[in-house]
Amino acid sequence: MNKPVTFSWPVRVYWEDTDGGGVVYHARYLNFFERARTEWLRSRGIDQSVLRDEHNRVFVVRKMTVEYLRAARLDDQLVVSVTPIRIARASMEMEQSIERVTAADSAQSEPIARAVVYAACLDAAAFRPVRIPPFILTELQ
Amino acid sequence: MNKPVTFSWPVRVYWEDTDGGGVVYHARYLNFFERARTEWLRSRGIDQSVLRDEHNRVFVVRKMTVEYLRAARLDDQLVVSVTPIRIARASMEMEQSIERVTAADSAQSEPIARAVVYAACLDAAAFRPVRIPPFILTELQ
Amino acid sequence: MNKPVTFSWPVRVYWEDTDGGGVVYHARYLNFFERARTEWLRSRGIDQSVLRDEHNRVFVVRKMTVEYLRAARLDDQLVVSVTPIRIARASMEMEQSIERVTAADSAQSEPIARAVVYAACLDAAAFRPVRIPPFILTELQ
Amino acid sequence: MNKPVTFSWPVRVYWEDTDGGGVVYHARYLNFFERARTEWLRSRGIDQSVLRDEHNRVFVVRKMTVEYLRAARLDDQLVVSVTPIRIARASMEMEQSIERVTAADSAQSEPIARAVVYAACLDAAAFRPVRIPPFILTELQ
Repeated sequence: MNKPVTFSWPVRVYWEDTDGGGVVYHARYLNFFERARTEWLRSRGIDQSVLRDEHNRVFVVRKMTVEYLRAARLDDQLVVSVTPIRIARASMEMEQSIERVTAADSAQSEPIARAVVYAACLDAAAFRPVRIPPFILTELQ
Repeated sequence: MNKPVTFSWPVRVYWEDTDGGGVVYHARYLNFFERARTEWLRSRGIDQSVLRDEHNRVFVVRKMTVEYLRAARLDDQLVVSVTPIRIARASMEMEQSIERVTAADSAQSEPIARAVVYAACLDAAAFRPVRIPPFILTELQ
Repeated sequence: MNKPVTFSWPVRVYWEDTDGGGVVYHARYLNFFERARTEWLRSRGIDQSVLRDEHNRVFVVRKMTVEYLRAARLDDQLVVSVTPIRIARASMEMEQSIERVTAADSAQSEPIARAVVYAACLDAAAFRPVRIPPFILTELQ
Repeated sequence: MNKPVTFSWPVRVYWEDTDGGGVVYHARYLNFFERARTEWLRSRGIDQSVLRDEHNRVFVVRKMTVEYLRAARLDDQLVVSVTPIRIARASMEMEQSIERVTAADSAQSEPIARAVVYAACLDAAAFRPVRIPPFILTELQ
């Protein structure tokens, strides 16, 4: 990987994402982070359903650190980013952020949350660590 | 089935269940209904993980009617019931209700929601309708 | 309302939407239906966060009938529709459907689920039925 | 706080908690961690709905580190623990773990996940940091 490239994905906040405190439920940001990782892989030609069904591989989160900076709220328009910082033979590490768009033209935003995610490649049936398939390494690097 | 017998299961409302309206998110009641169906089956000796892994069978909801009568809120103690009203060869129908306990001794309650659920038995791999295994029919009738 | 007009909204299936049966968890379709209702209102200029915060009004589901026709799966591209069939002074009724896009050009699809949803307008604080604000009736009719 | 005391809470894994990989969805463990924190507070006489409605206070997660050690699956019986390690004037830090009970008598278990959670006390309306009410500090220390 010559230099990290950041991938971004828009997420809208719906009722389902909020809790009785009037803000997005803290676990829900992990869903948002995952949607962005999934779309980043898809943007590289990797569909995880194909990966599981045809290659018997799944990526799972092994460790995650999340910082909550501001509360997102109903109807907020968010942008979730993924920046791969290390892709190894059987795992990868990504920095992620969530920002809230504060102007209609997306030109302004404020930080909502950030995370460091460490994911491993597993045999989908045995759920044991295995090497990332070469065609995926090629796509991601 | 000689006469319907009602099974009841307690559910506590947590932050994760509420939404920005200050009440339980409407789809979440379906989770509560399902927990009670799962525990009703378990009370008859039927674990759905065993049913899927060893018998290749899953029950899926085919049709559901839900009425929302009152809003449940954070910290509410609910009781979810299941009353099987028809068990056929490949499907079953259940009436379900959710009540809120309003006194510490559970003697008083008020209705929150009710549902009629029609579930079918499927081949877990092919996802096609099949007969309910005889040992389950025996347990449920 | 002279004639019903159908509004459609795309939804992608992520890991968070699926369950251990390999398909979308049945309650999750209600989230998808709600996202489409929310985007239909937004398309008419109605943001529910504004409705709640500035007009003290929320729409809540009172009754819902859902039919599950086919199972949606990870990575599926769905289209969720809303067709208002009755808009009254304090409530409205909508028909909704979820279809799976089966060709890249969206020209082909197959039915996944359909629902009839009856929603009421409530005072957001007292959670009691009230009339739908006139500016909303005007927008929706 | 003279010495940390660990509070434990049982959690059962339902269909709603699992994903299409056949295991508990990674974000769902945060729900489990939160249920245990909520029940720990309740065991000390602190209901968060009362805290919010009568004292205008909410606790929110500011930072969290989660390690996923093993995958939990449908029907698993888990035990979630909370060990407060630092309670300050406006925040607290807790170590948490999730274990799977592997014998009927709960005597045996294996680790599923662990977390360090840093939570802050906020004014529920303004969503700004404030001191933890004295009656809560007294209860927790």
